[in-house]
Formats: sequence, structure tokens, C-alpha cells
Amino acid sequence: MMSPYPSFGFVTPRNMGLLVDLYELVMADSYLRQGMNQPATFDLFIRQLPPHRSFLVSAGLESALYYLEHLRFDDEAIDYLAGLDLFSGAFLEYLRGFRFSGDVRAIPEGEIFFPPEPVMQVTAPRIEAQIVETFLLNTINFQVMVASKAARIILAARGRGVVDFSPRRDHAADAAMKAARASSIAGCVGTSNVLAGKEYGISVYGTIAHSYIMSFADELSAFRAYARDFPHNAILLIDTYDTVQGARHAIIVAREMGARGGKLRGVRIDSGDLASLSRQVRAVLDEAGLHDVQIVLTGELDEYKIERLLAGGAAADTFGVGTELGTSGDAPSIGGVYKLVEDERGPRVKLSTGKATLPGRKQVWRMRPAGGGVRDVIVLEDEPPLPDAEPLLVSVMAAGATTHQEDLVEMRARCKERLATLPAAFTHLHSTPEPPVSLSPKLEALKAQMYEQAAQAERRDGDLGQRDP
Amino acid sequence: MMSPYPSFGFVTPRNMGLLVDLYELVMADSYLRQGMNQPATFDLFIRQLPPHRSFLVSAGLESALYYLEHLRFDDEAIDYLAGLDLFSGAFLEYLRGFRFSGDVRAIPEGEIFFPPEPVMQVTAPRIEAQIVETFLLNTINFQVMVASKAARIILAARGRGVVDFSPRRDHAADAAMKAARASSIAGCVGTSNVLAGKEYGISVYGTIAHSYIMSFADELSAFRAYARDFPHNAILLIDTYDTVQGARHAIIVAREMGARGGKLRGVRIDSGDLASLSRQVRAVLDEAGLHDVQIVLTGELDEYKIERLLAGGAAADTFGVGTELGTSGDAPSIGGVYKLVEDERGPRVKLSTGKATLPGRKQVWRMRPAGGGVRDVIVLEDEPPLPDAEPLLVSVMAAGATTHQEDLVEMRARCKERLATLPAAFTHLHSTPEPPVSLSPKLEALKAQMYEQAAQAERRDGDLGQRDP
Repeated sequence: MMSPYPSFGFVTPRNMGLLVDLYELVMADSYLRQGMNQPATFDLFIRQLPPHRSFLVSAGLESALYYLEHLRFDDEAIDYLAGLDLFSGAFLEYLRGFRFSGDVRAIPEGEIFFPPEPVMQVTAPRIEAQIVETFLLNTINFQVMVASKAARIILAARGRGVVDFSPRRDHAADAAMKAARASSIAGCVGTSNVLAGKEYGISVYGTIAHSYIMSFADELSAFRAYARDFPHNAILLIDTYDTVQGARHAIIVAREMGARGGKLRGVRIDSGDLASLSRQVRAVLDEAGLHDVQIVLTGELDEYKIERLLAGGAAADTFGVGTELGTSGDAPSIGGVYKLVEDERGPRVKLSTGKATLPGRKQVWRMRPAGGGVRDVIVLEDEPPLPDAEPLLVSVMAAGATTHQEDLVEMRARCKERLATLPAAFTHLHSTPEPPVSLSPKLEALKAQMYEQAAQAERRDGDLGQRDP
Repeated sequence: MMSPYPSFGFVTPRNMGLLVDLYELVMADSYLRQGMNQPATFDLFIRQLPPHRSFLVSAGLESALYYLEHLRFDDEAIDYLAGLDLFSGAFLEYLRGFRFSGDVRAIPEGEIFFPPEPVMQVTAPRIEAQIVETFLLNTINFQVMVASKAARIILAARGRGVVDFSPRRDHAADAAMKAARASSIAGCVGTSNVLAGKEYGISVYGTIAHSYIMSFADELSAFRAYARDFPHNAILLIDTYDTVQGARHAIIVAREMGARGGKLRGVRIDSGDLASLSRQVRAVLDEAGLHDVQIVLTGELDEYKIERLLAGGAAADTFGVGTELGTSGDAPSIGGVYKLVEDERGPRVKLSTGKATLPGRKQVWRMRPAGGGVRDVIVLEDEPPLPDAEPLLVSVMAAGATTHQEDLVEMRARCKERLATLPAAFTHLHSTPEPPVSLSPKLEALKAQMYEQAAQAERRDGDLGQRDP
């Protein structure tokens, strides 16, 4: 069954149906044979905050909806599955006609949320709802992780621009795309990733590398060449040799550019004591009257380093952040899960220590008191609206058709507003307050009742088999 | 320029040319305008071992070669770039006819290597060599990271099978593909990712989820349904309620399967004290004569937990490893870089503290003394072969055409042999010995000479501009 090599293994609209854990298909086949295909509801939620996080940012919904709407199994997929000698003919025929026909509610992208709120709730015939688990988790987990990390970096930058420079360190190709997208939602001003610029309409940023400078006889020659070729967009990398001397070379070139009708856009510093060097460079530029030449700082930055740089008086207009933005080194995975919460028998719970689920179809209401603060209440879907509160879960897909479309501008605006009004306890990089989330009395009662029932069922179930004395 | 939403942002053979940091194209345009397109050599290497690592495993070469051989810029790409109002018409025309025409040498996949050995060396006209930087780093960094992590997990499992269960936690779609592939090279026996199974010819594994068990009236009913539907491949998940009781239910079902001519393949335990529970389950199964029913352990495992489980006497035939295999939590990024080491002027170095490069085109010779141990020497390419040593860098592409093809079986065999003969200091999970790498005297001398020249150049360069008193 091996494709001719060399192969890359691209994931495309045509084959994405097979980007699925085998067990989803195994269970789906069994459900089909057992005639178990009544509507069921699954929550996609994150059990607890990752280390160092006090909130999460919703992201990935659009790609999830794209997946749900376009998910198919073509002949090539069916042939491969048939060759595994595992599935029933009826199931393979079922897959051949597969269309996701379910309803989805979700927290819009750019919204802040807290565990254990469902960020997405899928109601669909059980087989459909089961098959989509792997891909939904794959795309949502990562984008929530990046958006939540990027939000911290953006908070640390205190109004200065943050640009995604992560593609070379992201976990392969799709991560580079989704990192650019999710960090843009969180508020990054752009990305170095040209394809993300094209596909998502994000601004693209780029300067030059040390190897460019080193490819010329000396720094000034390199600056002059680059400035001639890019008379309006040049950002000169000034730390290849001596940074302050590099700034002086940049001034020479800025004046030459000005004389030709161009304009130096900025300088970049990528190494050394960035706080001290950036201050010196700012002073040298200002002294030369180049107040609007921007300073871009890069070099293995994250929110902690940016916070220290600004506390140390760094002069920066923009931060380029790569590895840490794209891989979230202090919390490199999000433990999002996808759990059955209701089926034709009513609400369901999973009974495992530390792995509790909340039964039933739910809504999350957010209260933002005028005096500041944020309080969320998770309620059962059929409870009446809470006063002075907004529902976080909105309908995004009905009967398999997307009903909710936003562009990145709206998502970014939402996230910006939320971050601006989030209490300091949550925006402080080093505090990790408890999620401000409670359950409605009705949900609490249902949960308690379900757990009692489940415990009884477990005891009964235990009695079904033989027992040692 | 925004694509109609909802969009997913798939990376495909057609658009992968734009998965590039903008600055690569900026520099490339400038090089074209300056007529700087002589052959240049770039090393792709990792400066130092990530935390907790004592060796690295080469992986990602095949996808890198696929990229280099198929890289094009189509009309849609050119139109987008033209719309940025940044590039010269000549450069856009150059991109329209782009073909990578360079030579590549690399360390084959599955080979163990150490920083700062180049894992790939690209020699091509400077513009071509520059443009490919981002994508090569994106695909190689991640696959080396996963293969190196997976090798540790496989060492910890001491001969038991390890299966990749990571797709839901991998960093988006391409990471799920490359995690399956890289961990297969390192020795994983399979993956849960069906598409990776199809595209790369990897064995696929899957069982059932707790939600499946909970979808039936009781555990025994669930087991019976699954066993009927999959009479030869069923692996029963026995920890939804009481694990040892689950094992007894599995025995009932195994006997029913046997009576129908089927056979229970195994049981899976996903929670609780896995060491103790697996021993109890093994005893119960053995007592029932079911010695060949396998035990699969899962649940947020990594090499450290597997080591402790086996030290604690866990009974396991197979470990399923997800999050930690795919995201390498203790070292979630690899700092691979891609640096100019030679151009038409001769060898080049980058002169930055802690960011040193080794000048010139190189070879790496490996000595494996009969008494054990491993010693690598990095030499200049034109030095004579070292006695009793093997060269690690082999030609994999000449004039843009792939010259080296292996299938995963060969890569896996190589990695298995290397891991088996690696000295204990390197295979021990908790030791981090210095990389056993030295430079040849000739390379040492060239490096010293280059650094001296570069330091002189820096001083000269500093004198070019005006200086404060």
C-alpha cells in the first residue's frame, strides 16, 4: 500500500478524511453494525489550564468548520480501508456517501475562555460525531495553544507590534500556517510566512539575514545594496558585526535613501544585550533626526524576555517572535478532549478520577460586571438566559452547513477588546488564578445525580461477571 | 487578497513555494539584482543538544527532497507576490521559471548524529539555496525532534512495541503525518493515524474509546458487540469501570470468540496504577489460559513513565504514546539552523558569540571501535578518508534530481542497529554526555584562521563609518 517514494504526505481536502485515529473508524463500523446511529452530543473542552496560563483564546474554528463541511471519503480512501481487511462492506459503502450533517455550537475565535468550558459542541448522528473527533482535536488544540501563547506575548509587548517569525521552528507545514493564523487572531500584526499571508490575508513582514550582510564585502555595501533594491521597505539588520556601528551605517544609508526619495523603514537587532543596545541605537538614530526609523528586536524572544526587555528600558517598536510563539515552549501541548455528554438515553458522564465530564448540552454565560472582572457560569442549554450576561456558545453549523462566518479582522477585534478588559489577575504573566467558572445549580445537581447513577451502574456492572471471593 | 472564507490553508505541492519567510524572497530578489548568484553552500545543523537529549536521529530527508524536486511558483503565487508591491519584475519572472538545480548531501534517515554535525548540506546557486531555507528547516527540525524523542521512548520500552497515538495532540495536520513517519523511522511499530498508514505504508493500530463502552448498557454488552464485529482484531478497553473486573469480562468474551473461531487480540488499560493493574490483569488472563492475549498500556505516557512502569514490574506488550511522542514536551523544539559556509570567495563563517559556524564544505566520519563507543570527526570535504570510519554525509541530490531513495524499512533497520550498538552513556535516559564529536586539525586550523580574518574584517568594517571620539 506504500505510495511511490519520495513522498511528502500532504494533507489535502481530498484525503483529510483519513487523518483520523483508526479507532474512530473501528467504533463507527461497530455502531453501524449495531444500528447505533442516533444523535449524540460531544463536548470539545480542555480539562484544566496548561502550566503558566490563566486563560485560553478560542482559535481554529474556521478550519474545523471547513473540515466538517468538506469531509469526504473518495475511492482511493475506500480502497485503502478495504485493504486493511478490517471493515464491513456496509461501513465502506457508508463512508463512500459520507457527509457531516450535524449541528455545531462553538465559542467564536478570538474570545477568551476558561476550562472546563466547552469550546465546541457537536451534535450529530453518533457515527458522524465519532469520526470527526481526531481532526477536530488536532486543529483546535494547536490553534488554541498558539493563540493563548501569542496573547501573552502581545500583553507583554504593551502595545508594540508582535510579528510571527516561527515557520522554521513550527512543527511542520500545517503548524506554520495555523501558527500564523492563530497568532494573528490573538493580535500579532503580521507573519513572516508568505503562504499564510496569501491564504489568510495576513500582513507579511521580512527583513534580511546575517548571511546577506556577510555575502557582501562589508556591512555598508550590504546596506547600500539592500536599500537600493527596497527603497521604501528596507529594515536593516545591524548586529552582524558591531551593533552601534551598524546603526551608524544605517544612518549613512538612510540619508542616501532620503536623497533619492526613499525612506529607511527600520533596523533590526537580533543578538547581544537587546535592552542596552536598542537604547543606544535609538539614541544614535534620534541624534541623526531619524525618529521614525523603527527598531525591530528579535532573537529567541518570548513573553518573559519581552517583559524584562521593556522593564529594562528597551527601545522597540516591534518584536519578532519565532520558536516560542509557534511551539509554546512553557506549555507545548493543550490537553483538549472530546467527550460524549448526551445521547438518545439522555445526559452522559465519564466516570474517571481527574477525568470528569459535565453531562448534557450546555451553554456558557459570561458576566462582565461594570466594576471589572469576569465571571462565567456553565448552565444546561435549556436553562433561561442569565441576566446581564452574554452567551459564549453560538451556532456555527446547522445540518452540516456553516452558519457562522467571520473574517480575521472581527476575530482580532474581539480578542483585542477582551484582552483590554481582562482583570489584571489574568493578564499578569506570573499569576495563575483559578478559572472564574462555576456551574449552575441545575447542572451541579444533574452532575451529582449522574455520578451517583454511574457509580451504581459500575457496581451493577461489576456484579455481572464472576468475582473472586 | 484574502481567500474566500472559510479557508483551511492547506499546504500542497502547488503552493508550498510560498511557505517561506518573506526575507528569503527579499534577499533572493536583491541577490538577483546584484548579480550574486554563484554557487554557495549552506549547512543545516543543530548547534547543541536540546535538554535531556544525548543524541539526535536523522529524519525528514525524504520530505525535504520532495520539496526541493517539486518546488515551483505558479501564476497564483506570482500574482500574490506581485500584489505585495515589493519585488522586481525580473525576480518575479525568475520565480516563474524556478527549478532547484543544486546538489545536496545529507545524513540518511534513521542515522544517529550529534551537534554540530551538518545533517544536510545544500550547494546551489545562492538564490536557490537561500529560498529553500525556511521549508527545509520547518520539515527537518520537526522530524528530527520527533525521531529523537521516539528513540528514547523505544529505548525505555526495552523491546516492547511502541505505537504513535499522537494525532489529536500534534501541532496540526502535517505534524500528525510527520510524527507518524519520524517515529516509525525511530522504531515505532505503527501509528493510529490512518492517512499516515496509507501514505507511508506504516501499520495502523486502533482499539476503542471509553465513549464506546459507555454507549452500551454495560461493559460486557459493549465487549460482546465489539468482539462480534471484529472477531480477529479486537483489543478491549477494560478500564472504563473496574479494570480487573474488566479483565474478567474480557475473558468471558475471549472464550465466546474462541467458540466462534475468533480470537481476542488484547486488552488496553488507560488509567489508574498501570504497573499494578497490568500485573493483576496479566495474572487473571494467564490463570484463564489466555497467555497470548496482549496488554496495551496508554495514558499520557513518555519514556520516563515507561521506564518507571517497567521498573515497577508492569506487564505490557505494547505502549501507546500520544502527546509526548508528538510534541516532545521536555524539548518541544529543535534549534536547527541553516548557515552559509562557503561561497565563490571560499569558506565563510558567522561571527557571533554562541552562534559559531564551521567554515567550508564538510564530511563527517564515524568510528565505531570494536570495543564499543562512537567517535565522530568533522573534516573538510577534500580531506582523505579516515581509516576504519564511515562517512555520514552521502549524496542525496545532484543537479536537482534525487539520487538517494530508501524506504522506511531500511531507515528503521538502520536506526535499530544504531540504537542497539550505542554505548550505555548515550542510551541511558538520564545522562547527557558531551557529543563525541571533534574537528580535524585542518578544519580546526581553517576555523581559527577564518575567525581571525572575520575579526579583522569587523574592525576594518567598523572603521568605514564615522565614529564618535
